[in-house]
Amino acid sequence: MSIAALAARQSGGPLEPATYEPRALRDDDIRIDVKFAGICHSDIHTVREEWGSAIFPLVPGHEIAGVVAEVGSAVTKYKVGDRVGVGCMVDSCGECEYCKDGQEQFCAKGMTGTYNARDRHDKTPTKGGYAQAVTVSERFAVRIPDGLELDVAAPLLCAGITTYEPLRRFKVGQGTKVAVVGLGGLGHMGVKLAVAMGADVTVLSRSQAKKDDALALGAQHYVATGEEGAFKGLRSSFDLVLNTVSADLDMNDYLATLKPLGALVNVGLPTNPYEVAPFSVVGGSRILAGSNIGGIPATQEMLDFCAEHHLGADIETIDAKDVNEAYDRVVAGDVRYRVVIDTATIPTDGEKFEDAPAS
Amino acid sequence: MSIAALAARQSGGPLEPATYEPRALRDDDIRIDVKFAGICHSDIHTVREEWGSAIFPLVPGHEIAGVVAEVGSAVTKYKVGDRVGVGCMVDSCGECEYCKDGQEQFCAKGMTGTYNARDRHDKTPTKGGYAQAVTVSERFAVRIPDGLELDVAAPLLCAGITTYEPLRRFKVGQGTKVAVVGLGGLGHMGVKLAVAMGADVTVLSRSQAKKDDALALGAQHYVATGEEGAFKGLRSSFDLVLNTVSADLDMNDYLATLKPLGALVNVGLPTNPYEVAPFSVVGGSRILAGSNIGGIPATQEMLDFCAEHHLGADIETIDAKDVNEAYDRVVAGDVRYRVVIDTATIPTDGEKFEDAPAS
Repeated sequence: MSIAALAARQSGGPLEPATYEPRALRDDDIRIDVKFAGICHSDIHTVREEWGSAIFPLVPGHEIAGVVAEVGSAVTKYKVGDRVGVGCMVDSCGECEYCKDGQEQFCAKGMTGTYNARDRHDKTPTKGGYAQAVTVSERFAVRIPDGLELDVAAPLLCAGITTYEPLRRFKVGQGTKVAVVGLGGLGHMGVKLAVAMGADVTVLSRSQAKKDDALALGAQHYVATGEEGAFKGLRSSFDLVLNTVSADLDMNDYLATLKPLGALVNVGLPTNPYEVAPFSVVGGSRILAGSNIGGIPATQEMLDFCAEHHLGADIETIDAKDVNEAYDRVVAGDVRYRVVIDTATIPTDGEKFEDAPAS
Repeated sequence: MSIAALAARQSGGPLEPATYEPRALRDDDIRIDVKFAGICHSDIHTVREEWGSAIFPLVPGHEIAGVVAEVGSAVTKYKVGDRVGVGCMVDSCGECEYCKDGQEQFCAKGMTGTYNARDRHDKTPTKGGYAQAVTVSERFAVRIPDGLELDVAAPLLCAGITTYEPLRRFKVGQGTKVAVVGLGGLGHMGVKLAVAMGADVTVLSRSQAKKDDALALGAQHYVATGEEGAFKGLRSSFDLVLNTVSADLDMNDYLATLKPLGALVNVGLPTNPYEVAPFSVVGGSRILAGSNIGGIPATQEMLDFCAEHHLGADIETIDAKDVNEAYDRVVAGDVRYRVVIDTATIPTDGEKFEDAPAS
C-alpha cells in the first residue's frame, strides 16, 4: 500500500508529490481517506524550521477532513464511510489528569503532534493531512456532522477549535462584548463563532481595509486601531478580547479595552515578550491569558456547534500543484480566509520516501 | 463634636494627634466608634506620596473595626451597638453594572476611597480609620460576626478581602494546589484562607527564614525560591499562584510553576512592567491576572467565612504614639503580620484641623 502525499524533503521545502508506506492498522486505528486539508500558518513555520528543527521528509497538515476507509479490529467509535476530522494531535497517554479531563493537548507525558512528531509506540515520524490518507487512533478522530461540508470543515480542526476554546472557557454568550483582533484564518473563525454564540462583536484591525469583510462575517462593529485616538474610544469596553495576531502588539493598549474582570486571550505567538504594566491587570482585576488549541471533547462540541449554526470556514480550494504558491500567499496575508487543498489532485506517482530514522 | 485622629499634616508625615469636625449624619450614614485600625502598606505609600499626590491633612486607615454609635434617619441595616467594619471604599454610584453586581470597586463613575479621596456630595476629603470615629454610608459597612474579635478582624477589611477575592474567583476548594508568594500581611492571610478552603498550600519565599512560620500558619509545603533549582522542581505544580509581593519578580518563573490552565494572580504593584514570554501563557493556556480588593458582598462573605473557620489576622497591637515607628517597621518587613492601632490610645486633645479646600 502506498499513500500519495505532499512532502517537504528538506528544511524550507518546496512541497513536492511523494508517496510513503503507512503503518499496518493497529487495533484502535482508523484509515481515513482524506478529502481536504487546510493550510495553517504553523505548517509553514514548521516546514521552514522557524519554530525549531523539524523531521524531514515532512508531510504537513493538521486540518484534516475525510471519510473512514478502514478500521482496526477494536475500533468501536467509527465505521467505514463515516465522515471524520483530525486536528493537531493524534495521540496522548490517556491516563493523566489532563487526558482524563479531555484536555489531551496538555498530556503530562506530552501529546503526539499530527506531523513533525514521533509515534510513541514505533517511533516513526507522524505524517499529516496533505495526503490522500492518514492513519490515526480512533480516539483522536472527531465526527463531522451531516450538513457540514468537508471542505469548510477542514480548517475548523485547528482554526476553529483554537478560537472556540477560549470563547467557551471565558463563557461568551448572549450579549457578551467580544473584540477579535486580526481578521485572518483564526480571526474570521473567532468572529463567526462569537456571533453565533450571541456576542456583540467588534473587529480590531490596523486599517479600515477589512471593514466590509468584518461586517459581512457578522461583526457588529469595526475599529481601525492604527487611527489616532482609537484606543481612547475603546476603554473598558469588552468582556473578552481574542487576539489572533502573531505580531508584537502593546498588551497594555488591549488590556485597557477590557472591562474590569475582563480577559485578553492570545492565541498567536509573537517573537518578543509582552511588556505588561502591573496596573494593567491589577487595577481592574483583568486577565492576560493564552490559549493552545483545545481537547478532543471540545473539538467535537465545536463541530456540532458549527453544524447546528450552519457555519464553516470561508475557504479557497486549491490543487496540489499550487501549494507552494499558496504558502507565500498565506505569509503575505493574501488569503480570505483559509486555503484548503483538494487532496484528490495530489499526484499518485510521487517518489517514495523512507522515514527519517529515530535519533 | 470633635473626632480624635492621627493625621499627617504634610507629605511624608509624621502622623500626629489631631482632631476634626465630622460631617453631620446624612440619612444613610452611620457613625462608627472605631476600636481598631490596621496599618496597611498602602497607607504608608499614600502618606509618603509614593503613589502620587495626596490630600493633606490626611487621616489614613482602611482596615477599620468598631461599633455603631449613631445612625441616620434612613438607616435600616444597622443599629447602635452593632459590630461593623469598613474597608477601602466608602461610596460609589450604586447604579452602574459593577455596583449592581456587587463589584463597587470598579464603579463606572469611580468609587470613593476611605481616605485621600473626596466625598462625591460635599467634596470634603474622606477621613480614614486612624481615629476614634468614622462616618460612612451604611452601604459600605459590613457586619463583623460574633466570635470574630474586633482587633483580629480589622486587617481582614483589606488584607483579608484582597486575598479572599482571587481565591474565590479562581474557585479554590478541597485539594486545589495553591502557592502563596510572600509571607507578609497579605500572604499570611492568603495562606490561612486557602488552608481553610481545603487547598494544599505551598509558601514560596526567597529564603528559608519563614519556613516555620509558614507551616505554623497551616501551609503544607515551603520552598525557598532563592535556592538553586527551586523553580525546576516546581514545574506544572499549582492550580493557582497568589503573588502578594510588590518586588519585581520574573513572571515566567512563576507561570511555569502553574499547571496547564492555571492562574497566577498578582495583588501587589511592582514598579516595573512584567516581561512575559508569550509561550509562558499560550503554551499551557495559562492566566496572568491581577486582583484589586473585592466588592461589599464578597467582603461580607469573607468575614462570615472567617468567623465560621475561627480565623483572623495575626496581629501586633500598638498604642497611637508608636505609629510612626510602626510605619518604619512595616516598610522593613519587620512585622508578623499586621500592626493594629488601639484607637482608644489616640489623644483627644490634638490640634483641630480644617479640611483642605477642593481644588
